[in-house]
Amino acid sequence: MIVDISKKILIVGLGLLGGSYAKALKRFGFYISAITKDEQSIEYALKEGIIDEGSTKLDEKIIGSADLVIFALYPHVFVEWIKENQHLLKENALLTDVTGVKGSIVYKIQDMLRDDLEFIAAHPMAGKETSGVENSTEKMFFGANYIVTPTKKNTPEAISTCLELGRLLGFSCVTTLSPEEHDEMIGFLSQLTHCIAITLMTCNDKENMEKFTGDSFRDLTRIAKINDIMWSELFIANKDALLKQMDMFINKFNDLKQMLENEDVSSMREMMRHSTKRRALFDKK
Amino acid sequence: MIVDISKKILIVGLGLLGGSYAKALKRFGFYISAITKDEQSIEYALKEGIIDEGSTKLDEKIIGSADLVIFALYPHVFVEWIKENQHLLKENALLTDVTGVKGSIVYKIQDMLRDDLEFIAAHPMAGKETSGVENSTEKMFFGANYIVTPTKKNTPEAISTCLELGRLLGFSCVTTLSPEEHDEMIGFLSQLTHCIAITLMTCNDKENMEKFTGDSFRDLTRIAKINDIMWSELFIANKDALLKQMDMFINKFNDLKQMLENEDVSSMREMMRHSTKRRALFDKK
Repeated sequence: MIVDISKKILIVGLGLLGGSYAKALKRFGFYISAITKDEQSIEYALKEGIIDEGSTKLDEKIIGSADLVIFALYPHVFVEWIKENQHLLKENALLTDVTGVKGSIVYKIQDMLRDDLEFIAAHPMAGKETSGVENSTEKMFFGANYIVTPTKKNTPEAISTCLELGRLLGFSCVTTLSPEEHDEMIGFLSQLTHCIAITLMTCNDKENMEKFTGDSFRDLTRIAKINDIMWSELFIANKDALLKQMDMFINKFNDLKQMLENEDVSSMREMMRHSTKRRALFDKK
Repeated sequence: MIVDISKKILIVGLGLLGGSYAKALKRFGFYISAITKDEQSIEYALKEGIIDEGSTKLDEKIIGSADLVIFALYPHVFVEWIKENQHLLKENALLTDVTGVKGSIVYKIQDMLRDDLEFIAAHPMAGKETSGVENSTEKMFFGANYIVTPTKKNTPEAISTCLELGRLLGFSCVTTLSPEEHDEMIGFLSQLTHCIAITLMTCNDKENMEKFTGDSFRDLTRIAKINDIMWSELFIANKDALLKQMDMFINKFNDLKQMLENEDVSSMREMMRHSTKRRALFDKK
């Protein structure tokens, strides 16, 4: 095991994801600390035994003794944190994160980082419609994907450690992509789907529709319950890639509309057969 | 009970829905017959005891003895069937259906129908990604909606009978709408969602995306496995209402795109809060 059990792990930002990391890693017996804004989150995590110590302050002892630091913060908060507090980090500490966008974050952080520190970015593709450490669970990671996004500045050791972290957390598929590939992929698979869900949910305010709905509409809008602060920031942080994906979707949707206007049954059926065939690839194994 | 147990029920078209009707109604002990194209479907249903008799032919005795006839056919096949075979139906028989579009079907059928017959249209809002009587199950109806769409030509008795049929089948919510209201509602809740799902599934053919997907994309494309013959026909049969819903969706989607281009965080957050609040209405009770 590369991530050896004597290493001290610090989680900065103990919410749904940070808490789930703590729970998953505690199974192995790591010494885990946490820094977070909310006193209740620290109390909950200490009581549940998922962290060994924690603080709502910038505790120099806690921060200065961590070998591996996991940042589970909103993108702009993460950047600010590094800018203002990186002097507190232990010499040669390894940093990673959970941020859902990469291109607009990774290079910025790596460029400003102290020479002895290394930041290797990762995106755990797991979430729920709830938030807060009280709702955290390591079960979120089983069957889910974990993407590491190394750059030229990363060492092979840091990349290996981060991949192993993903496996320790319980992710079923642990892979690497460049930050740019990641952002394009996430723009399509995650952000575009959220754009569609919130559009569908808000484009028609007719009353009583819930009495007539089937499961299709429910499925397409499950993620329409959305954390507005986080997602608006993620959308803007990935603006260019997301706009490209939105255009791709609109163009195809307009093609379908045109087929319907022309009553072009054979093109519609071809599109549906393509859709059916391609969806089979995405069935859970 | 209005639908009395001595009534003979005929199902025309013994597929997923027709078979599920047979299974649900057989629990009460009704005498059930079926006419369908496929010999194997009849054999299966007889073997499973969900019908009492059946034929792949236009059996005059079976058709001529049914008091209640349920048509579970594609829209244009249903219209053709009535045109060519209504002389075989029992005097004063009551007819109903499962067709997913109403405006383009109901008046056409009612206008051509013999004076002694009555057609009361209904739409059971239940389905699966599989087809055929072998996959039928009455469980599909629990928790689901059943919509009766009466016109001026319908008698109060026929409407009551059809509503009771929905309850006997096990639907959780049984309601009435006009054919036009139905088509608008279904255009939005069901057809538009299918249009979105197949567009999302076919607008980006990049390889290996299944390795990086989370559940959001899977949820939004569950219904992208689609029966191309049936759905292309349903789309065209509800063309005007569906085009209106597609435009409504595109306009809102373009609004969101504009917000992103302008980095208009406050409008984006407002849209997301609206979405979150409205989605709560659609939670399953």
